[in-house]
Amino acid sequence: MANKKNTMRITYPSSEKIYIPGEINKIKVAMRKIKLLDTVTIDEQGEKTFKKNNPVIVYDTSGPFSDPKINIDINAGIPRIREEWCSKRKDIEQLSQLSSEYGRSRLEDKNLDAIRFPERHLPYRAKEGKTITQMYYAKRRIITPEMEYVAIRENQQIEALGLKSYITPDFVRKEIAAGRAIIPSNINHPEAEPMIIGKKFLVKINTNIGNSALSSGISEEIEKAVWSCKWGGDTLMDLSTGDNIHETREWIIRNCPVPMGTVPIYQALEKVDGDVEALSWEIYRDTLIEQAEQGVDYFTIHAGLLKKHVDLTATRLSGIVSRGGSIMAKWMQLHNEENFLYTHFSDICDILAQYDVAVSIGDGLRPGSIYDANDAAQFAELHTMGELTNIAWEKFVQVIIEGPGHVPMNKIHENMKEQQYACHGAPFYTLGPLTTDIAPGYDHITSAIGAAQIAWQGTAMICYVTPKEHLGLPNKEDVRNGVVAYKIAAHAADLAKGHPGAQVRDNALSKARFDFRWKDQFNLSLDPERALQYYKESAVTDGEYCTMCGPNFCAMRLSKDLHKECKD
Amino acid sequence: MANKKNTMRITYPSSEKIYIPGEINKIKVAMRKIKLLDTVTIDEQGEKTFKKNNPVIVYDTSGPFSDPKINIDINAGIPRIREEWCSKRKDIEQLSQLSSEYGRSRLEDKNLDAIRFPERHLPYRAKEGKTITQMYYAKRRIITPEMEYVAIRENQQIEALGLKSYITPDFVRKEIAAGRAIIPSNINHPEAEPMIIGKKFLVKINTNIGNSALSSGISEEIEKAVWSCKWGGDTLMDLSTGDNIHETREWIIRNCPVPMGTVPIYQALEKVDGDVEALSWEIYRDTLIEQAEQGVDYFTIHAGLLKKHVDLTATRLSGIVSRGGSIMAKWMQLHNEENFLYTHFSDICDILAQYDVAVSIGDGLRPGSIYDANDAAQFAELHTMGELTNIAWEKFVQVIIEGPGHVPMNKIHENMKEQQYACHGAPFYTLGPLTTDIAPGYDHITSAIGAAQIAWQGTAMICYVTPKEHLGLPNKEDVRNGVVAYKIAAHAADLAKGHPGAQVRDNALSKARFDFRWKDQFNLSLDPERALQYYKESAVTDGEYCTMCGPNFCAMRLSKDLHKECKD
Repeated sequence: MANKKNTMRITYPSSEKIYIPGEINKIKVAMRKIKLLDTVTIDEQGEKTFKKNNPVIVYDTSGPFSDPKINIDINAGIPRIREEWCSKRKDIEQLSQLSSEYGRSRLEDKNLDAIRFPERHLPYRAKEGKTITQMYYAKRRIITPEMEYVAIRENQQIEALGLKSYITPDFVRKEIAAGRAIIPSNINHPEAEPMIIGKKFLVKINTNIGNSALSSGISEEIEKAVWSCKWGGDTLMDLSTGDNIHETREWIIRNCPVPMGTVPIYQALEKVDGDVEALSWEIYRDTLIEQAEQGVDYFTIHAGLLKKHVDLTATRLSGIVSRGGSIMAKWMQLHNEENFLYTHFSDICDILAQYDVAVSIGDGLRPGSIYDANDAAQFAELHTMGELTNIAWEKFVQVIIEGPGHVPMNKIHENMKEQQYACHGAPFYTLGPLTTDIAPGYDHITSAIGAAQIAWQGTAMICYVTPKEHLGLPNKEDVRNGVVAYKIAAHAADLAKGHPGAQVRDNALSKARFDFRWKDQFNLSLDPERALQYYKESAVTDGEYCTMCGPNFCAMRLSKDLHKECKD
Repeated sequence: MANKKNTMRITYPSSEKIYIPGEINKIKVAMRKIKLLDTVTIDEQGEKTFKKNNPVIVYDTSGPFSDPKINIDINAGIPRIREEWCSKRKDIEQLSQLSSEYGRSRLEDKNLDAIRFPERHLPYRAKEGKTITQMYYAKRRIITPEMEYVAIRENQQIEALGLKSYITPDFVRKEIAAGRAIIPSNINHPEAEPMIIGKKFLVKINTNIGNSALSSGISEEIEKAVWSCKWGGDTLMDLSTGDNIHETREWIIRNCPVPMGTVPIYQALEKVDGDVEALSWEIYRDTLIEQAEQGVDYFTIHAGLLKKHVDLTATRLSGIVSRGGSIMAKWMQLHNEENFLYTHFSDICDILAQYDVAVSIGDGLRPGSIYDANDAAQFAELHTMGELTNIAWEKFVQVIIEGPGHVPMNKIHENMKEQQYACHGAPFYTLGPLTTDIAPGYDHITSAIGAAQIAWQGTAMICYVTPKEHLGLPNKEDVRNGVVAYKIAAHAADLAKGHPGAQVRDNALSKARFDFRWKDQFNLSLDPERALQYYKESAVTDGEYCTMCGPNFCAMRLSKDLHKECKD
């Protein structure tokens, strides 16, 4: 594979990579500082006065790709910042070989050498008898470096303002101990910067990548991953169903600064050539171990879908639209047995706990149309997901709960309420929801409308939807449009929730706008490149008026003059 | 001006223009019927069964441009469907000349012949002593053709289903009589198809066009107007501030099948070469008459902004961002007098009543940033707008109230509540609101999130925002993106409000999706062209699986198989 060094850099205009040190642990938390121009006022004598504008510090998902001091070589992978933290705890051990049979067989296959990630890292696992999850530490009242990291990370704006926030490392610990938040942090993905998913924290967004039988190669997938991080994706799900899933995943994880999730049943099904009937607990189990040892941080597992629930979908307009859900429903029908993900859920959790992989309990029966929203099938499964949450928590496995889907606005609140009730306060992670079915080509918008609302009501993470949803696989531009739409939804929710410091960036941008500091307006925006491009496409002003009104009628100029004179 | 016959056609795939006759009045209400393919099922013997799918009838804003039986010649204008209705009422008269001095001077200027609309229509006005507004008729218990038209139009899906709806012509009449809804219907714009703006009806969207000193010509503006109608714009505001506003407007109105609004102060200011101090009631008054006799259906008038309110903006982050508001604030400061739009509001209403021009009371102090949302200035003006509503209603002038702006989600509800309270239930017409300031380039999305919510809560019309907001003037693609984003917001609100029949289209599209009737899915969508384009950009399947998953893992196919076998 060609070295992609150059294309894999991330840059933001007028921005500097900074690191804030920890107080409890030896950590440095990456952030992005956006530097601003001075506000210039000119008095009647033509005298200019300059007034400093404080830089704005923003949450940064771009990892080392945006730090010019760090050498990026995707053949080596990015720095393994958490490896030392984990080792220091002395509760894990490095294995001498892969535990997964499939993993070993891939490793031995010489034909795969050409596409294999060059560096080999032996996997870590909990020592016999040790529990190593963040939830376990939290319940033991240990503040891990991961917990302190996210506390600092969540507070970047606040600290910069010199204000006090409630988000202390101990607050983080308590939320994790209670199951209300998780830090996805597989010990085998030490490249990931810790981030937290919970309703009392900044709303996070997930993006999906993945090749399918119809699509793309390894280098394209890595590029997509970095691209997603550039625009602000907080976690990344690899939904690949095509060839060489194992090798592709290794490349991505080794270069991924954000937690990664997968749906292991997809790969398990690949292993039996798509023959649902041939799926078995043994194949699935080996897949979990294979992926856990590569470093996947959370698994979507459709364990809440039971035989009795499938009957409830008979009257639906669009049946089962979750891939994982439909696979398991089919398996249950063919075998006339209960879902093996349900019957083996306790075994699954035993495996996950050994690596601190979080479980994202999948909603196999999420509604695929407005008509099916909030139906009996959906809520029956949700209650089973609540049972499973307790099983996972008994084993200190971190849990999030996946949610819909297609839901009209008036039925969104019920989803949030039922989920919190049924799943004992575990974080909710929803796909949108899409608030209408009639806009294929624009489902990043139909769903951003729903996502903003459900996030405001407490959903901790929203899974992005691209404009290509329902139509095809997204390209890079689609990913960018999807991520930015979801950053908007998440930020709108942070503002509405009154998250401390969330409004700092809005205020700074609006001040820049009112000051006609165009460059600052662009640089503070979620997508500086697009803002600048659109500005350039129109007649350029560069002057003291807004391009909307033209020079003669600029409202903001008139308004400025007004206050200037008022103060005289 | 070149005849643009061909480019001005609107076509929708698999669609037919249909007309539903009135029962009380001799009217025919235009609608669009989308024809669907049969659902095909294949049994185990390979036998195919075909099952009909009913066509879906949708609201149609495209006017005669989508009727192949009507000859389109923009030099002649589109059919004047309401002229006969208005004349029949015998309460209006056709004048022998324009009443506006400015209008006459433009007409006499031979230099303008080249850009003048070729056909001349003498203006209509109420006969001395007659009141001719829809509100007046409604209070007199007269069901006008306009009222019956909108009743049928709002019910298209319902009637097609053979169901009963509460939206009867008399229900329409009652809502208008109470001031809770308006039908913008200047007697001088008989080309417009009647539409209703009120919280108990389908949510409407407004789009803006207009040249500025920096921009575009007449033909481009007409094309934009037709383009907006194609994608679903319900009304159109012409915000021109450039040259030849008068002539451009004539061209647009004569070819515009939807009601048109303007902000007359913009043109008044042009007439005094941008010198705010030189603005006067006389110039403004003549502008109102000039535009009313051309056929403008509603005027945005910033009459609620008082001297005392301007002081309240001193602590704002972004001052006054409404153009009209900033002009009037400046005028008050220069003259040290009260806003002449306020002091002459009763005179204004007398003029408006003569043509049935509705007043859209402008919110000169709408917040221009999250920081300024719901502040004292904004709500002080809102309460004055409520006073003015009563003055207009005394003269039977139809009223809508303009609203913000930039508002975080948690402050949206207060806007709706205060507006309904302060303005006695008059329809609310908001610009978004934008739910964050940090996404220039994506403000169609930041604002669609807010618009969907405020519309759900009762806002009757939402004014679109394009991706170029804050950055520049929109081009055609921006208009399309803005309109579709707002159709989504409006429809999401219709679904959430439980508007009768709103879900028919969602259900039909989702059924098509589940049936793998790809073409029907595209044809039923808000933007069939884009859906098809995106589908084609990806690997084409044409088969029985969805392009997202690829052939091996299609959830919907698995789910279909499931129910097929369940029924065996």
